[in-house]
Amino acid sequence: EDQARQRAVEPSDPYSGDPQRHPALRVNSAKPFNAEPPPALLGDSYITPSAIFFKRNHLPVPRVDPASYRLRVEGLPRPLSLSLADLKSRFPKHTVTATLQCAGNRRSEMNAVKQVKGLNWGIAAISNATWSGALLRDVLREGGWGPEAAAAAGGGGARHVQFEGLDADASGTTYGASIPLNKALSEEGDVLLAYQMNGEDLPADHGYPLRVVVPGTVGARNVKWLGTVTVSREESASHWQQNDYKGFSPGTDWDTVDFRSAPAIQELPVQSAITQPADGAVLERDADGGVTVRGYAWSGGGRAVVRVDVSLDGGKTWQVARLREGEGDGEGEEEQGEATPPPPPPPLPGRAWAWKLWEVVAPLPPGEQQVEIVCKAVDDSYNMQPDSVAPIWNLRGVLSNAWHRVRVTVRED
Amino acid sequence: EDQARQRAVEPSDPYSGDPQRHPALRVNSAKPFNAEPPPALLGDSYITPSAIFFKRNHLPVPRVDPASYRLRVEGLPRPLSLSLADLKSRFPKHTVTATLQCAGNRRSEMNAVKQVKGLNWGIAAISNATWSGALLRDVLREGGWGPEAAAAAGGGGARHVQFEGLDADASGTTYGASIPLNKALSEEGDVLLAYQMNGEDLPADHGYPLRVVVPGTVGARNVKWLGTVTVSREESASHWQQNDYKGFSPGTDWDTVDFRSAPAIQELPVQSAITQPADGAVLERDADGGVTVRGYAWSGGGRAVVRVDVSLDGGKTWQVARLREGEGDGEGEEEQGEATPPPPPPPLPGRAWAWKLWEVVAPLPPGEQQVEIVCKAVDDSYNMQPDSVAPIWNLRGVLSNAWHRVRVTVRED
Ligand SMILES: [Mo]
Ligand SMILES: [Mo]
Repeated sequence: EDQARQRAVEPSDPYSGDPQRHPALRVNSAKPFNAEPPPALLGDSYITPSAIFFKRNHLPVPRVDPASYRLRVEGLPRPLSLSLADLKSRFPKHTVTATLQCAGNRRSEMNAVKQVKGLNWGIAAISNATWSGALLRDVLREGGWGPEAAAAAGGGGARHVQFEGLDADASGTTYGASIPLNKALSEEGDVLLAYQMNGEDLPADHGYPLRVVVPGTVGARNVKWLGTVTVSREESASHWQQNDYKGFSPGTDWDTVDFRSAPAIQELPVQSAITQPADGAVLERDADGGVTVRGYAWSGGGRAVVRVDVSLDGGKTWQVARLREGEGDGEGEEEQGEATPPPPPPPLPGRAWAWKLWEVVAPLPPGEQQVEIVCKAVDDSYNMQPDSVAPIWNLRGVLSNAWHRVRVTVRED
Repeated sequence: EDQARQRAVEPSDPYSGDPQRHPALRVNSAKPFNAEPPPALLGDSYITPSAIFFKRNHLPVPRVDPASYRLRVEGLPRPLSLSLADLKSRFPKHTVTATLQCAGNRRSEMNAVKQVKGLNWGIAAISNATWSGALLRDVLREGGWGPEAAAAAGGGGARHVQFEGLDADASGTTYGASIPLNKALSEEGDVLLAYQMNGEDLPADHGYPLRVVVPGTVGARNVKWLGTVTVSREESASHWQQNDYKGFSPGTDWDTVDFRSAPAIQELPVQSAITQPADGAVLERDADGGVTVRGYAWSGGGRAVVRVDVSLDGGKTWQVARLREGEGDGEGEEEQGEATPPPPPPPLPGRAWAWKLWEVVAPLPPGEQQVEIVCKAVDDSYNMQPDSVAPIWNLRGVLSNAWHRVRVTVRED
């Protein structure tokens, strides 16, 4: 215990205050800490336990004293300084189940095409949790934001909400990002200033005591250890908003890239991946010759996944997976008899923030020893995943959402 | 003239009252009339002239007397019956530039994979126009729609707005469709009850005297010759909402299809196509060896196209096209010097209803006689078009948005 306290105050290592992590995590970077759960574990539960929820830190985890903590809210007629107690007592508590995904999820598949810059994420830099807190919209309105303030802002007015974290590098530069103001203000945007994850205080790795949760939007804008919120005409000036987390053409390289030419990633495109079996697995061909394939599917912008197609022959023929039922989500329930009451109405269009887990039990192609299993998802705007990685390859290795493929070997009994 | 009048009242042909059409149109079906413009003409102008705007009729064009016309608005605390004069005088006039696309655009490419059911559209069942009229939102509010009415609707409440056209078949069945209520009510939805197209009264083929324009949403929901608007708990019960205009897996055929299993198409996925050169064109290799490639790109749901990639080698290497400037849209302007004033701010996220035309001038691959030119677009959710047609093939031939490919022959000078 003494040793632990010692480590925590060791001034030479800014990461000495980082929390303990779950040993099952696959670590992509220790300092800052970046790690993802094993895929099979991820695909096991609709709500990802906080301990194995993917960790994506850009900087050391700051230690924040909850008693003296204040959230500053700027760029409003009445700037605010809110304690945790204020956030919990002065605004209705709102709970949202939302999937977060790192822009770099599945980057390793881009690296396999051609080297990119970034952490070598597998398919598990995505997780799903329930988040509770105050609606950002309510807080902005408390600060006097409304049609009049919008008009008074003048000259085109405010268009963005900037977030600044309390995590900082040695020079004092903090993490920052921004989102469009209309997302923050929308009644249907569900943007949270969250103080709870899965029913408990936020863990240190996930932003204790307060983070932004921007459902449907890339992880990078869901700023943790939130210090300041600013309504502004400008996007965040941070490195991560301006010169990172943007998509480019496969032909663009580090000599020709102009970061101003591409928009900052906000909503993410439709995504899916196979969590079971694992790539390279050896399967026994059992009596009925079937294999169980499971995975996740999700899309940004609140677009619901409406179908997942699975192929056992590398994409030549397809069958439709069963969408597994999520908590508080009757949409995936396909086994109801006529006596079962009808499922609850689906979420309003544009508010499907949570992923869907899916499953298909399918016969293995007879006689084949090498089988390529493929999945692709479709969302309710009928956007689909691109077939292959090379044409969406980009120098930063983000937005890797081609069909997911796992190759398995089938052993005859 | 007598002859024309004669034809118009000929009772044996319900299409005898249909209007004259522009001779440049390529006719896919005469009765009902369905036709598209030549691609090169389409790609020539940001605003498509009404005469060559694609025509997609399901039934005979009804003749509506503007003096006696009334729009009925139902499912509200105060049902409305509105004359054209009411619509023009009692509600602010709102103008939107919006691209409409038929669900079946580019169906011919699916037919080339395997026969589908439907009109054999080329790449021009898409066009762009300015539309003016009353906001549906304003009309619904005039009828008393608001939070209280929503609550009073009870039991989950209203979720849809149904539209019924005045066009009918011999049995009296009218065209019908619906959209989600939150799209209709949103301040940022821009749903119009439009009485003008490109600054003039709606042409007969485009819904005179009144149609719905639902920006970002498939053409089929933009009901023409609008008779009735109904706020409802249910989607439209029409054939076109329930048993048509839905997407399915490539493995689903007419024996296995269950139309209840898929959502009605609303927002469309990201799309682009090459309008010049034409497929099969013979190009002369000129002195500088360059070819000019032009096309359109668009995405549903108000998502802006942010990039178009073009390949002259079948998709192996890519370059970025120049987005041509649209009217009232400075985003595509890339040729400004430092003296030019900055472009106007882009439309708010989620309200990019109009397409972008694009162009690239590129060297033809040296020595090659057969060149495959390919384009693919990316929208601001970073959704991309799928690579190939077969994996998105569906029995109704809708949502055909794979990379567009044209094969040209290069003749040496
Ligand atoms: Mo990320
Ligand atoms: Mo259509």
